[in-house]
Amino acid sequence: MPLLGLLPRRAWAALLSQLLRPPCASCTGAVRCQSQVAEAVLTSQLKAHQEKPNFIIKIPKGTRDLSPQHMVVREKILDLVISCFKRHGAKGMDTPAFELKETLTEKYGEDSGLMYDLKDQGGELLSLRYDLTVPFARYLAMNKVKKMKRYHVGKVWRRESPSIVQGRYREFCQCDFDIAGQFDPMIPDAECLKIMCEILSGLQLGDFLIKVNDRRIVDGMFAACGVPESKFRAICSSIDKLDKMAWKDVRHEMVAKKGLAPEVADRIGDYVQCHGGVSLVEQMFQDPRLSQNKQALEGLEDLKLLFEYLNLFGIAEKISFDLSLARGLDYYTGVIYEAVLLQTPTQAGEEPLNVGSVAAGGRYDGLVGMFDPKGHKVPCVGLSIGVERIFYIVEQRMKTKGEKVRTTETQVFVATPQKNFLQERLKLITELWDAGIKAEMLYKNNPKLLTQLHYCESTGIPLVVIIDFVRNMHLLAEKLSPWLIVVEMNKHPLQMTTAACEYWLCGQKKDK
Amino acid sequence: MPLLGLLPRRAWAALLSQLLRPPCASCTGAVRCQSQVAEAVLTSQLKAHQEKPNFIIKIPKGTRDLSPQHMVVREKILDLVISCFKRHGAKGMDTPAFELKETLTEKYGEDSGLMYDLKDQGGELLSLRYDLTVPFARYLAMNKVKKMKRYHVGKVWRRESPSIVQGRYREFCQCDFDIAGQFDPMIPDAECLKIMCEILSGLQLGDFLIKVNDRRIVDGMFAACGVPESKFRAICSSIDKLDKMAWKDVRHEMVAKKGLAPEVADRIGDYVQCHGGVSLVEQMFQDPRLSQNKQALEGLEDLKLLFEYLNLFGIAEKISFDLSLARGLDYYTGVIYEAVLLQTPTQAGEEPLNVGSVAAGGRYDGLVGMFDPKGHKVPCVGLSIGVERIFYIVEQRMKTKGEKVRTTETQVFVATPQKNFLQERLKLITELWDAGIKAEMLYKNNPKLLTQLHYCESTGIPLVVIIDFVRNMHLLAEKLSPWLIVVEMNKHPLQMTTAACEYWLCGQKKDK
Repeated sequence: MPLLGLLPRRAWAALLSQLLRPPCASCTGAVRCQSQVAEAVLTSQLKAHQEKPNFIIKIPKGTRDLSPQHMVVREKILDLVISCFKRHGAKGMDTPAFELKETLTEKYGEDSGLMYDLKDQGGELLSLRYDLTVPFARYLAMNKVKKMKRYHVGKVWRRESPSIVQGRYREFCQCDFDIAGQFDPMIPDAECLKIMCEILSGLQLGDFLIKVNDRRIVDGMFAACGVPESKFRAICSSIDKLDKMAWKDVRHEMVAKKGLAPEVADRIGDYVQCHGGVSLVEQMFQDPRLSQNKQALEGLEDLKLLFEYLNLFGIAEKISFDLSLARGLDYYTGVIYEAVLLQTPTQAGEEPLNVGSVAAGGRYDGLVGMFDPKGHKVPCVGLSIGVERIFYIVEQRMKTKGEKVRTTETQVFVATPQKNFLQERLKLITELWDAGIKAEMLYKNNPKLLTQLHYCESTGIPLVVIIDFVRNMHLLAEKLSPWLIVVEMNKHPLQMTTAACEYWLCGQKKDK
Repeated sequence: MPLLGLLPRRAWAALLSQLLRPPCASCTGAVRCQSQVAEAVLTSQLKAHQEKPNFIIKIPKGTRDLSPQHMVVREKILDLVISCFKRHGAKGMDTPAFELKETLTEKYGEDSGLMYDLKDQGGELLSLRYDLTVPFARYLAMNKVKKMKRYHVGKVWRRESPSIVQGRYREFCQCDFDIAGQFDPMIPDAECLKIMCEILSGLQLGDFLIKVNDRRIVDGMFAACGVPESKFRAICSSIDKLDKMAWKDVRHEMVAKKGLAPEVADRIGDYVQCHGGVSLVEQMFQDPRLSQNKQALEGLEDLKLLFEYLNLFGIAEKISFDLSLARGLDYYTGVIYEAVLLQTPTQAGEEPLNVGSVAAGGRYDGLVGMFDPKGHKVPCVGLSIGVERIFYIVEQRMKTKGEKVRTTETQVFVATPQKNFLQERLKLITELWDAGIKAEMLYKNNPKLLTQLHYCESTGIPLVVIIDFVRNMHLLAEKLSPWLIVVEMNKHPLQMTTAACEYWLCGQKKDK
């Protein structure tokens, strides 16, 4: 390889780093070759093969593959979420995908039937994890951890019936932040709400509101309305559906299916219409029925303190005390919250988004104790970001706007317009890789230049290094000598601008 | 809150960003208070609870939780691996944790029995994925993708018997890079080896070697030695154990368990001792038995070309043509490779590492066709980084050296030495969070200063902002006025150096 003299690694890295800084101002000599692009033909070599009858490739019901397009959107969103968790001092953690079945039973209320069990292959009875909260509580109890601030991003599995709940998958990603430990009231709880605000603001999903309530107020309200204690959790489940169902239907479920007296249901109906700021908390202290209930009063006291901290965090205007918020899961014991996006007027051409809960959480002071042999409690409060819904919203918006994402990060493509240049390409791309530059080339001995440029265009690679041999007339060289031409791909398809960097490289012989 | 005037957000961010740049030269006024640390007492409030007899918390056999310490090491290693994959133009992708059982059957040879099946809960028969390669092939066939360069990092599950294979878990992380598509020979294959070299060099695990062979040479060798074709895959499995078992034991398995004639086994024994560079490839072209075999010749031709490219990539000296390399999986059809760490002389106090394969892969041209209804083939070549083994090696080294990792990234801790300062702390930490600074405080109304400093020390937080009120004698102020003192935690436990940044903040009243 005496002909091709490459620049020393550092020189290359420096040259290309400069070019990789957007935007590059010094571009000269635009060359149009759009018409040639149209001539580029993609041939697919399909041969006749034996058919396999009744052979269908499928993936399991309710699951899906995540394509590179999906992955790029997810990576961006998860990066933002995780960096917020880290900003608040959280540690990362992971637990196995499955747990002993008994670890998960009696934790999820009505939804327990949706758990995926593993086949008994002669060992323990196992189930896939249903959320990340119960495994966290199990971890704390098992390792006798009394204090921990951790985040956990991972898949969970639920055998939802896909026909009933549209757009929900049986495998999905959860993104949790939790604070475990005995602390002074409402400080960690307020931080959880602060984190939800930071993430939802950072993601720029539009205006949002966080509904807040307290399980003790919910239970106090039930007691005050005359719900028998045995029906608390069942009625709580019904109330939880108020964001998807009208009051009329929820009332019907409570009366007809769950056997609640109609007048009791109507009393609940009066409460669940109430929502407001800290003034509503004050108002409820005066409520003749609620103020008689010790639990409810405790909840109201805590909410009052919570609002004080939310004020100091500068987020009180994002929070609404909402008596219709109940949260379906059994394990909550104190403050509960749920963030919803507010419907913004639909922009031209934009599909109306299915607005709903995008983050939620609450306090669960009893869960860890359920795993401790001596019942020692570790109070916990946490939140879960509804990343799947957020992925969906962001993807829909990009689709509406016609935005495309690059699925690779390649910075430089190594090309050649002539035959028999594979060796030169391999040597050059090695220099680039070893200098930490993201580079690609085609895996062909003699690719056409147009095919190569077309690849750059379709994958969005911003720079092309073309290795070319030209006859050096000035030096009366008897041989062809190698040039490197760096071409900047423009936003217009294949309109090339030769950057001011053509390097005459055969002079390196003298240097040696 | 008229007393505490905080600096504007930008001023804060600028001040702290400067301090967060290591190393900070201008430190004055060191204050020792080590003796006081000894006085800090951690109290645990254990109350008597009801005991639950026979209650044991466990996680499934062969699995484990990943603690924050594990996660930090993993994140660093995976970042390096993924950035290498991206440098080579790979796209990210993910598939569900489980597949239809039929998708996975008959792909893994002798190991198929180790698959985790899901319980039949009235739907499809499902199994947890066993590797990431078969799901990738299924994805390509299902979506009729003819070309793709992708990486995939994810968990896979195998019901290994933990007692037999020590240190292996039933749930573990795989880290794969694959190139699918019809290209000119050996170019993608050579890139896979280049990637393995880049990653293993980057991780600084010590010297390594990549063994290379070709399934066609393995099969040609078997044919030349007189192995009946029906026994090719079974004998291949035995040969694959040569890195863990002595030849004597492998020979015994082949003869006694798999019914191979002893003289055939001995002929194989002659070959599997051969390893070397490209000269061994040349030598094998002259081998009287191998050179008669068409398949083996094809393999040797390809290896010759491969070594040419490896030379251009500058990695030929890391590669060894090794006739004992067989690879256990059924689906390989061409070049196969496996990277091993070379045993380095054990350093003082360092436990000898269990050196073994840390990366492996090969060409599998038939796998996608197994999923295509018409049997259309998509040739593939790829590699898998043995990240679990690498995690283990790095963790062991850190343990030996007594290295500690920080499990959080918190930059600033907000403290106060006096009572009733919660509101000031909450306001200040809000400023920090909103400026993107990673900050923590204790969730207590009135924490002791020592407790706070002890927390910083134990979690490695480099900076503490102390909010203090001091009587301002000069201004004859009738009230206490707030100061902020930024303290830099040193490497010595709790040796504090007051950085040159004490801000008198009550002057802000005038600014308003």
